[in-house]
Amino acid sequence: MASPTAILLVSCPDQKGLVAKLANFIYANGGNILHADQHCDPEAGLFLSRLEWELEGFNLPRDIIGPAFNAIAQPLGATWQLSFSDDVPRLSIWVSHQDHCLLDLLWRHQAGEFKAEIPLIISNHSTLKPIADQFGIDFHHIPITKDSKAEQEQTQLALLQQYGIHLVVLAKYMQVLSPNFLKTYSQVINIHHSFLPAFMGANPYQRAYQRGVKIIGATAHYVTSDLDEGPIIEQDVVRISHRDDVKELIRKGKDMERIVLARAVRLHLQSRTLVYGNRTVVFG
Amino acid sequence: MASPTAILLVSCPDQKGLVAKLANFIYANGGNILHADQHCDPEAGLFLSRLEWELEGFNLPRDIIGPAFNAIAQPLGATWQLSFSDDVPRLSIWVSHQDHCLLDLLWRHQAGEFKAEIPLIISNHSTLKPIADQFGIDFHHIPITKDSKAEQEQTQLALLQQYGIHLVVLAKYMQVLSPNFLKTYSQVINIHHSFLPAFMGANPYQRAYQRGVKIIGATAHYVTSDLDEGPIIEQDVVRISHRDDVKELIRKGKDMERIVLARAVRLHLQSRTLVYGNRTVVFG
Amino acid sequence: MASPTAILLVSCPDQKGLVAKLANFIYANGGNILHADQHCDPEAGLFLSRLEWELEGFNLPRDIIGPAFNAIAQPLGATWQLSFSDDVPRLSIWVSHQDHCLLDLLWRHQAGEFKAEIPLIISNHSTLKPIADQFGIDFHHIPITKDSKAEQEQTQLALLQQYGIHLVVLAKYMQVLSPNFLKTYSQVINIHHSFLPAFMGANPYQRAYQRGVKIIGATAHYVTSDLDEGPIIEQDVVRISHRDDVKELIRKGKDMERIVLARAVRLHLQSRTLVYGNRTVVFG
Amino acid sequence: MASPTAILLVSCPDQKGLVAKLANFIYANGGNILHADQHCDPEAGLFLSRLEWELEGFNLPRDIIGPAFNAIAQPLGATWQLSFSDDVPRLSIWVSHQDHCLLDLLWRHQAGEFKAEIPLIISNHSTLKPIADQFGIDFHHIPITKDSKAEQEQTQLALLQQYGIHLVVLAKYMQVLSPNFLKTYSQVINIHHSFLPAFMGANPYQRAYQRGVKIIGATAHYVTSDLDEGPIIEQDVVRISHRDDVKELIRKGKDMERIVLARAVRLHLQSRTLVYGNRTVVFG
Repeated sequence: MASPTAILLVSCPDQKGLVAKLANFIYANGGNILHADQHCDPEAGLFLSRLEWELEGFNLPRDIIGPAFNAIAQPLGATWQLSFSDDVPRLSIWVSHQDHCLLDLLWRHQAGEFKAEIPLIISNHSTLKPIADQFGIDFHHIPITKDSKAEQEQTQLALLQQYGIHLVVLAKYMQVLSPNFLKTYSQVINIHHSFLPAFMGANPYQRAYQRGVKIIGATAHYVTSDLDEGPIIEQDVVRISHRDDVKELIRKGKDMERIVLARAVRLHLQSRTLVYGNRTVVFG
Repeated sequence: MASPTAILLVSCPDQKGLVAKLANFIYANGGNILHADQHCDPEAGLFLSRLEWELEGFNLPRDIIGPAFNAIAQPLGATWQLSFSDDVPRLSIWVSHQDHCLLDLLWRHQAGEFKAEIPLIISNHSTLKPIADQFGIDFHHIPITKDSKAEQEQTQLALLQQYGIHLVVLAKYMQVLSPNFLKTYSQVINIHHSFLPAFMGANPYQRAYQRGVKIIGATAHYVTSDLDEGPIIEQDVVRISHRDDVKELIRKGKDMERIVLARAVRLHLQSRTLVYGNRTVVFG
Repeated sequence: MASPTAILLVSCPDQKGLVAKLANFIYANGGNILHADQHCDPEAGLFLSRLEWELEGFNLPRDIIGPAFNAIAQPLGATWQLSFSDDVPRLSIWVSHQDHCLLDLLWRHQAGEFKAEIPLIISNHSTLKPIADQFGIDFHHIPITKDSKAEQEQTQLALLQQYGIHLVVLAKYMQVLSPNFLKTYSQVINIHHSFLPAFMGANPYQRAYQRGVKIIGATAHYVTSDLDEGPIIEQDVVRISHRDDVKELIRKGKDMERIVLARAVRLHLQSRTLVYGNRTVVFG
Repeated sequence: MASPTAILLVSCPDQKGLVAKLANFIYANGGNILHADQHCDPEAGLFLSRLEWELEGFNLPRDIIGPAFNAIAQPLGATWQLSFSDDVPRLSIWVSHQDHCLLDLLWRHQAGEFKAEIPLIISNHSTLKPIADQFGIDFHHIPITKDSKAEQEQTQLALLQQYGIHLVVLAKYMQVLSPNFLKTYSQVINIHHSFLPAFMGANPYQRAYQRGVKIIGATAHYVTSDLDEGPIIEQDVVRISHRDDVKELIRKGKDMERIVLARAVRLHLQSRTLVYGNRTVVFG
């Protein structure tokens, strides 16, 4: 097995010497950089970077890396995030009735594609409880009505805290999270069943059919309080024809939803995504 | 060379025996069907078909085929359109400042990809006159202002009639055709530089950049009086990343615009497109 | 639910009147054609067609359709195949160690994407028995060595007969079927983990990496005695970069394998594939 | 306009501190890094990097950058290549009868997609001379026979030297360059009309048709003395169906050839390609 690595995601106002400063921090402490990728957005005046280096031979103990780097980051006005390749983030998957994205994520998890634990499934319906049982994952049925929503979101938030969840994945969870919820908990990835910004909102496949498009798609994005407007992580598309009715669009679209959501979750878990404004940098 | 063929596009309310009736019409007159494709839209209750058969050995002279077929079509309530593979439709290409779609169409025409004549280029600017000159095509500079538009559209319509134009191709013509114009002349294909219905209207690349999408596209559609809402003929997409600024989106998008517009024009010229409602059937 | 339909796949030497004859057969017996698609291969002098019509209102009972059609087919020198949309073909899935294609097929089956029964899984290893158990499918572990192969293939053939299997799907079954086996049983679809004919044979991902290709793919094909040379049903590809090592190619390739194999199985089950020579016509 | 930049491509045995050393060289001399990308190939034990920084404010004059960097590179055992964004490399395009790739390159050049001069077209036929004339480019007709090849290659090499050519683009030049030629001049990009390594050698479209593939492609690669085996820069594909005969494959393939070759030439001109072994790193 590869030895563990440290990963830094950094963004700060652009200025001379940033690459050198970051690289020197690692080199001076005996680290071997495996990947270093940066991006400058000249319009935003931003420098964004991802650095990954081997912990073996690195002189700083894990719990000191953060504070030590902060001494460099602060004068640069940088925000940053440190993770380790052997971290095992805890995921919660939220669903409603449809199982394809849930099953796909669970299989991939089983197949080792995700370095994560999945201790908690939440649903506004009980339909998919048997899948949770089969995989030995706690399932919480939390029905949502207009009236109960505010209260139920408190229950959801309590569960996220109780289970120590680092990322919520909305895998065809057909409910909108309130701005209040997102103020408390914001690490949420959603899969939208259209090629955003086309067909925002409800029933995208029906509307794609009505519009007579020749290609449909799916979009994985971070959730913000603006519905279907959050930073896009990944998109993909599939060709359709006049022979495909709405049912066929849904069937073909499912494959895109599965693949696009899985890619987005994996990119996030590998600390390859950096959000700024309403955009993402995806370090390939 | 292949011998000439006749092509029928038919749409009518669905009922039993339609395929047999159409095929019998051709067989009874000694024709050999090369391609026969049908589509039923159960929701719309419509039958749509494209038939292509060899004229060699067909007993009806060309000018009798239409009237003869009409005797079959009328009781079925069918609308239909007859063309011949050796027809040479006359195209007019309309442009503004950008040359890539125009050049691409002219090259493909030169390379024999389109069975058509291109006797007329119209532009609201004089920028691309040299290209028209180089290819020996008449170029009419018809500037458009808000005030002059109604009048200038009359000039345009007169030219279409004078040149006997069967299809207008808006190859990055950055003007909207008025409902009045379209009432008089409706055979118009446009290329829109986005993956419709995403980014309808102006500046799609800037807006795609702002939205942070990971894929951009282009859409060729028939023009209707609802801007960017006409029946879609063809779409295609290309992947982008955070490294692509607006200028790069425009550059990458150009390739899609060229390819998608050319495919749509070719499909139309081969009588492979059938419009119903706001949709197209594209017979492959 | 849609009412049941009959589907005819026909191929015969091309001649005038074939579409009419086929359509008339259906119309004369009161059938309503839902889909009719034909293809002529002028080089091979072949006419190939797929016809689907509603059984409701059709005058011939099911068991008479075949004999009745044969009276038409024989003088045309046609080979044909009749099926019904409510047929439930019986599939056997064959695997070795890898589970992704198996799981994907079983999930799609559960989701109603395949009209079929899957009563039998065969493997040369016992690794995937728990999945068979979980889905309640009989699992037969039939180890293969060079010496035992001939004998074990007899066991396999006996099982296919015993279970009444209509289609064998090699879902990452890492053994070659002998010409003898294929002489007895030839309805076999395989998924090859490369974009055939690139990287035929073993270890395609390793070889793709060595060659430094920028795109990898997967190919579903009917199995013939020429390894990796059978008629291709479906292919798809995914882009890779220099950052992808062999392990990543395998991971990305799995998604293609799953999707391409599932599409091919579905096309076959819907009687949309017609083999001639070493090619397929896929009626969309 | 953006101010000019310097670009370094570096490859060397991997070791600690390489990113820091490279970044410090630029920072210490007052440079502002715009892009820095690295790749490690652990199997090959190689570190590969592309660095781009602004010349404005950089303390070293252009002609000193190379020697100064060499002092750093040599102890690392690095090979490197320095270029400037305002360099204008000189291209020679080689063709035979087909014009689509040539025209596409010339149009893109005209449209400003390539920072380059194109003073020289060489062909073994005179067919495309009119295009050269139209664009005001010198055209040399150098016919090749088996017997004359060795001698004619000397003529070609003399022309490359005379015109100061930095890159030869084989834009459907249907001749193989001899190992002797390539020993003298090795900066050559070729477009192959298949998805390599499928259909290496002659007549790929005919063979793709014979094989019945469902997707065709094109490959741009550096030329080596092993025919169609050189390092791949870019590939792309397009879907086909049973309806496409060889002529259609050729037509559809042309679009891929144009796009793939243009992308490869642009990547090379922007110093985004780094060859090692038989592979390329393409810095996106």
